[in-house]
Amino acid sequence: MKSNIYRIEIQTQHESELINITGTVFDLVKTSQVKNGTVLVLSLHTTTAITVNEGLPDLEKDIATLIQKLVPDEGIYNHARFLPSDGQMAINAPSHLRGALLGFQVFFPIENGNIITGSRQTIYFVELDGPQYRTYVVQIIGE
Amino acid sequence: MKSNIYRIEIQTQHESELINITGTVFDLVKTSQVKNGTVLVLSLHTTTAITVNEGLPDLEKDIATLIQKLVPDEGIYNHARFLPSDGQMAINAPSHLRGALLGFQVFFPIENGNIITGSRQTIYFVELDGPQYRTYVVQIIGE
Amino acid sequence: MKSNIYRIEIQTQHESELINITGTVFDLVKTSQVKNGTVLVLSLHTTTAITVNEGLPDLEKDIATLIQKLVPDEGIYNHARFLPSDGQMAINAPSHLRGALLGFQVFFPIENGNIITGSRQTIYFVELDGPQYRTYVVQIIGE
Repeated sequence: MKSNIYRIEIQTQHESELINITGTVFDLVKTSQVKNGTVLVLSLHTTTAITVNEGLPDLEKDIATLIQKLVPDEGIYNHARFLPSDGQMAINAPSHLRGALLGFQVFFPIENGNIITGSRQTIYFVELDGPQYRTYVVQIIGE
Repeated sequence: MKSNIYRIEIQTQHESELINITGTVFDLVKTSQVKNGTVLVLSLHTTTAITVNEGLPDLEKDIATLIQKLVPDEGIYNHARFLPSDGQMAINAPSHLRGALLGFQVFFPIENGNIITGSRQTIYFVELDGPQYRTYVVQIIGE
Repeated sequence: MKSNIYRIEIQTQHESELINITGTVFDLVKTSQVKNGTVLVLSLHTTTAITVNEGLPDLEKDIATLIQKLVPDEGIYNHARFLPSDGQMAINAPSHLRGALLGFQVFFPIENGNIITGSRQTIYFVELDGPQYRTYVVQIIGE
């Protein structure tokens, strides 16, 4: 079994943002030369998410609006205090909670060198507490 | 490492529906003859989900009710406009958002030819915008 | 491809509780001696979850509070009736639904014998209907 691990670094631009990473994931599957296996995509942060949806700007807005409604900015959170480890106030409880609802990892099969996704499935890296410098990992296992 | 990929096609019957696919997944693990590995189950659509819960009709109703409450039909969505690519109005924003909350993929280990699940874990294909003709994928990797 | 499967049993202490299992998962990756592969963590119960977030007690409270808000104890649920199979009333619909929102499984890559996680990513077993005796599974595949 081969395992190819790629760390992809991105500078996000907005506080909340869905970034289409489908092309990058597809390219890495080709680069890996794995013919049959699985590609795993995961974020290394707790105020981001990985999600999949149809690649339409209006849906991106609806996803952002939904998680802001379910986890409102103006809520009362325990994670809202001085964090000695960070040297600053923690004010991003909603970012953490939104990530927990969306999840932070997905996978897809690889068959004959091609990733299997639905024709409307777009893979998104979701920034929930940006702008920040972020890393996500693409692992391709198989043969 | 062996990789067996099965595409399962189903005609859903209702607009919103939880379909028990546990038996199909178990059967495919047997068919694959993989003794030790992992089975991955994922939907190829963005208005469906894959979820796991106790296999009780009353819980199926509660899951459907919950996501309809969190993402109401009567909400205001950006994804509610004429889509040239589809030749019709997009009116299924809630279906997309409900899928994002439930997720669309799960996995289970395989040990000595048997899938490891909890005794109450039932695997569901969740239709959120039916009835439609749908495809989900079962991939079995291992040896 | 090697597959090492570990069943970890825990006695939870509270009705609702986030239990940090990061150390156990890291230790099992070492024990497995898998150098390159993937570790899968999943719960075998439908009233629990596996989630990942920054390991702070205040965030643990916020996660518990959020899912209690989204799925209130005092809601009206179908899963609230005498269950002959259990010999008692089912009163834990919220526990099932909270698990469905958080999800019950995660994975991480293994590279040169080390699990790849973000520096703030803590892996949690989430009790939603305790206290109970629970089992989660850690599977390590690779070579």
